[in-house]
Amino acid sequence: MSAEPGLLSTVRGPQDVKRMTPDELAFLAAEIRDFLVAKVSRTGGHLGPNLGVVELTLAMHRVFDSPLDRFLFDTGHQAYVHKMLTGRQAGFDQLRQRGGLSGYPSQQESEHDIIENSHASTALSYADGLAKAYALRGESRQVVAVVGDGALTGGMCWEALNNIAAAKNPLVIVVNDNGRSYAPTIGGLADHLSSLRLNPGYERVLDTIKDTLGATPIVGRPVYEVLHAVKTGIKDAVAPQAMFEDLGIKYVGPIDGHDMFAMESALRRAKGFGGPVIVHAVTRKGYGYRPAEDDEADCLHGPSSAFDVETGKLLAAPSVKWTNVFAEELVAIADDRPDVVGITAAMGEPTGIATLARKHPSRVYDVGIAEQHAVTSAAGLALGGLHPVVAVYATFLNRAFDQVLLDVAMHKLPVTFVLDRAGITGPDGPSHYGIWDMSVLGVVPGLRIAAPRDASTLREELREALAVDDGPTVLRFPTGAVAPDVPAVRRVGGVDVLVESSSRDVLLVAVGAFGQMGVDVAARVAEQGYGVTVVDPRWVRPVAPEIVALARDHRLVVTVEDGVRAGGVGDAVAKALRDADVAVPVRDLGVPVAWHAHGSRAQILADLGLTAQDVAREVTGWLTGLDSPAPSFAEAKVLDGGRSPAK
Amino acid sequence: MSAEPGLLSTVRGPQDVKRMTPDELAFLAAEIRDFLVAKVSRTGGHLGPNLGVVELTLAMHRVFDSPLDRFLFDTGHQAYVHKMLTGRQAGFDQLRQRGGLSGYPSQQESEHDIIENSHASTALSYADGLAKAYALRGESRQVVAVVGDGALTGGMCWEALNNIAAAKNPLVIVVNDNGRSYAPTIGGLADHLSSLRLNPGYERVLDTIKDTLGATPIVGRPVYEVLHAVKTGIKDAVAPQAMFEDLGIKYVGPIDGHDMFAMESALRRAKGFGGPVIVHAVTRKGYGYRPAEDDEADCLHGPSSAFDVETGKLLAAPSVKWTNVFAEELVAIADDRPDVVGITAAMGEPTGIATLARKHPSRVYDVGIAEQHAVTSAAGLALGGLHPVVAVYATFLNRAFDQVLLDVAMHKLPVTFVLDRAGITGPDGPSHYGIWDMSVLGVVPGLRIAAPRDASTLREELREALAVDDGPTVLRFPTGAVAPDVPAVRRVGGVDVLVESSSRDVLLVAVGAFGQMGVDVAARVAEQGYGVTVVDPRWVRPVAPEIVALARDHRLVVTVEDGVRAGGVGDAVAKALRDADVAVPVRDLGVPVAWHAHGSRAQILADLGLTAQDVAREVTGWLTGLDSPAPSFAEAKVLDGGRSPAK
Repeated sequence: MSAEPGLLSTVRGPQDVKRMTPDELAFLAAEIRDFLVAKVSRTGGHLGPNLGVVELTLAMHRVFDSPLDRFLFDTGHQAYVHKMLTGRQAGFDQLRQRGGLSGYPSQQESEHDIIENSHASTALSYADGLAKAYALRGESRQVVAVVGDGALTGGMCWEALNNIAAAKNPLVIVVNDNGRSYAPTIGGLADHLSSLRLNPGYERVLDTIKDTLGATPIVGRPVYEVLHAVKTGIKDAVAPQAMFEDLGIKYVGPIDGHDMFAMESALRRAKGFGGPVIVHAVTRKGYGYRPAEDDEADCLHGPSSAFDVETGKLLAAPSVKWTNVFAEELVAIADDRPDVVGITAAMGEPTGIATLARKHPSRVYDVGIAEQHAVTSAAGLALGGLHPVVAVYATFLNRAFDQVLLDVAMHKLPVTFVLDRAGITGPDGPSHYGIWDMSVLGVVPGLRIAAPRDASTLREELREALAVDDGPTVLRFPTGAVAPDVPAVRRVGGVDVLVESSSRDVLLVAVGAFGQMGVDVAARVAEQGYGVTVVDPRWVRPVAPEIVALARDHRLVVTVEDGVRAGGVGDAVAKALRDADVAVPVRDLGVPVAWHAHGSRAQILADLGLTAQDVAREVTGWLTGLDSPAPSFAEAKVLDGGRSPAK
Repeated sequence: MSAEPGLLSTVRGPQDVKRMTPDELAFLAAEIRDFLVAKVSRTGGHLGPNLGVVELTLAMHRVFDSPLDRFLFDTGHQAYVHKMLTGRQAGFDQLRQRGGLSGYPSQQESEHDIIENSHASTALSYADGLAKAYALRGESRQVVAVVGDGALTGGMCWEALNNIAAAKNPLVIVVNDNGRSYAPTIGGLADHLSSLRLNPGYERVLDTIKDTLGATPIVGRPVYEVLHAVKTGIKDAVAPQAMFEDLGIKYVGPIDGHDMFAMESALRRAKGFGGPVIVHAVTRKGYGYRPAEDDEADCLHGPSSAFDVETGKLLAAPSVKWTNVFAEELVAIADDRPDVVGITAAMGEPTGIATLARKHPSRVYDVGIAEQHAVTSAAGLALGGLHPVVAVYATFLNRAFDQVLLDVAMHKLPVTFVLDRAGITGPDGPSHYGIWDMSVLGVVPGLRIAAPRDASTLREELREALAVDDGPTVLRFPTGAVAPDVPAVRRVGGVDVLVESSSRDVLLVAVGAFGQMGVDVAARVAEQGYGVTVVDPRWVRPVAPEIVALARDHRLVVTVEDGVRAGGVGDAVAKALRDADVAVPVRDLGVPVAWHAHGSRAQILADLGLTAQDVAREVTGWLTGLDSPAPSFAEAKVLDGGRSPAK
């Protein structure tokens, strides 16, 4: 296996692919796979999905004219090959690293990229809008969306297909069907996809129908039989179903997604049709790279760091991750409590819910890539007397905000949301940051949010959350390895005091995993002669009265959180002090409301000034300012007016 | 037409319906309709939908045993008849009024109600969870969900059906198919439903199939033919499709939803099946009440106030509503700008987008009850060079928060969201309040929010929003009639100064429609000898630098907003002052983070202390406090430390 330059290095843009011979294309495909393995084995990244779309992507670039025609990759991590064919091969040495190539399409990188986000099931909606715009403006441009079979379990796809069918604009939907999303795709739909792919009689049955009914040309062949039907029985064999065709979407397929010429031919037919068409490509995730093909669990979907090319094993020594701590403790709790059940949206392994599933398989529900259903079906489980744990990446809970607010919280239901990858995550870039949860969830009445600082508090706060029976709870923790425990010197109410000092200059509220940083800040600030109290609030919503009480005894309150500043814990603490007529000044540190590019978590935190060194310097500066007030500002007065009528 | 008590008054619970004779039931159904019209004509409320479900609801209560069996009404405004049959007839005199009967199911009202929320397309997800819980706990209880055909266009239904099919638990889904949601249902799916209902050959064709293939018993008859298929052609006629059946969901129907005995028989068959079943009931919205039947636009869906029983016309004099002002101005702008297009999620008339559709039909897209698709297809339209206006009730944008954040804002796309019914709305209760938008959207980078205070600023700010071409904009305004314009004395930057005073004691930041209230507050506070400056920020996100500059010259800043306090404009102003080292104290008034029951907007605002009188008293109290500081609190110091590294 080698990544030596050959044909690939001559590909500077899609036109270079268009003029290749069949032999050259076959060679190029192999070279692309070598390149992918070689590069991703050094940086980490999404490998399995991209090994599966090599021929598909080549065919797309041969048949269509990007960027005049528009390619929309759903869950954009399957766009590596597209990047390689559009002038970005050199970038792969710095893939997903700060300043390097993004792991997703990026408008900034190339005119061939139009959508950047990485949440699943959205591409068909973009495509519908784009096709409508081109139709209204009279532009003759093709729109091609690539969507995985897993993403089709997301409700947005259903909404989009219904609208695409009604609009009747030209639009090519490539269903990249590898039978998996992150894990084998879940649900009734998946069963049917699977049975169809394995059905040896498929072509023969079709021929029979064609002969009998004369109603199934290739374009216009019923897609329903592929996406929804044909288990067994004479009815199905005689009359494959036609869901999308009857909705008005034509169907081409299924096509062997690794047969480039079949793919090209299917795409050419689709391009010429003049209305919405589905091209159903059957691919294999990890195709052509043995360790990925052998990895049944997830086909080397996305190794997080460098791996051994021969074995596919990560080179980094395994560490205990936040996820592992959560998963173990959840199983321990569930062993004792039969009412505790787990829910995942197609991410059982990455969220740790799979650990519970192995121990108690009947008590875990994988709903597919369907966060809305995950949340509201959890509400239903809770109405039925259970205590569901919905484990999801922090960024993905945004997709079900309304369901958390109304379906769970308004009904005061005991559902615990466990938000993994909260805060700054890193290599996956802005759409994967888990920095919005504490702000957005802060408006939800009765919802309580815990932010554990280490493994021990994670275990403890998970148990506390699962003991709450009158409303939703949230646990949020960051990505990666969990650092050593940070001991508390004492607990006041629900608040852990991590550092105390004889002089009480500043109260530092260190949220969650910033606990250790808070301790480090205290040491640095103490060197400047100031006394620092560091607290971990443990439960950050609502603000604990102990925080307010402690604040009264200090000259300054500083909050630091791994979330966006707007409406975050800092704002909540400041408001609690205002509401209690405590006039101690507050300074809040956190993530600015802006888009933050990919990089390592440590790099990005450093860029944002969220390190012990930076925070200590800030705090010291503010304290110095308190000791020598600027003359230009009026002194603030203490307020003791009546309580607000609207608090 | 009369609402005199007869049989209806003898119905104290479902058991009374169970023992009625056919003749009695027919009489009862008529009496229920009279009752509905009589009551709703006095209070306003959802009339058309409830007239359509009389027999369906009676049949449900005869076949199942609520509350042991569980009824889940999707878009709960179709639960009036259910309420009448479960002991709540007396409440209808106070329907949707403060302290009176809720317009939606309510756990507090009755053990027969289990879910309260009113956002569409959620009931099947609850049902899936509830059925799973009963299965896991070994409880033998039926779960019955009632969902409209319109709600089926929402993606959550697709997510739920896929999971319900995979789980195989007993569960009855009643599809209440009246061919409309708020307006005639949109999309390819609707075309097929419609063609099926009108197909006189339906039963005959089915018989043919049964004879030929022997594969279509009543339970288990293909639902796909009903929900998705059968336009024309021999293939369809010979082999109706079977989407849900192939997914594993059996089908019964279509049933005449006004034939109580057919409904009852279908529900009994469904109850006995032991797995998921769809019962397809064809109903007519407004059935049995001529003015509703004659109202083709929306069948008297939800008259907002009392109406004339003979004509169906509202008794209140028509007034100019915020919606009307928006709709007129949008048309005026669109006449000049061909790039301006409109999007609605099945609410063209209530949001005013229908006005644009009448003038420029090719430039309005109704996507069905599918807010996620509305937002991301708008992103697609913007990528294609258009400037879409997505008009939606404020409460419903919560359903597409992730799409606003990533699909629109991360791509810096010029999409304008017009949020009608923002702030406290009133009779529809907590799930319809539009109080979350300013907080939740405050975390979205690059998004700008305008809150017009009157008709003139609404027009002006809409034009300003549509002039922004590098990111999303939001306009939010309340429900109801628009009050007279509130003139500004001058404009500073983008901020309107509404009241000025020679002494500058307090800066009152009055958000949006609270502008007039701010002026009234100023008059009252001035009577106490304090000088008040009142500003309307016009654009509330981001905080204008002029607000910060003005704040420096005052002793106190007070904000008042028609939105939830957590993370709202008040918090944002306070943060802006902290970040600028302005130590003037801030007090923020708004809606508490809590659930607020239904009532009139004015009543609820009064309950929350958000009236001129209350706010003036608060402000005066705070100013008095500033003049005589409480001895127990330390004076706050002015800060002039370095700028935060993470702002």
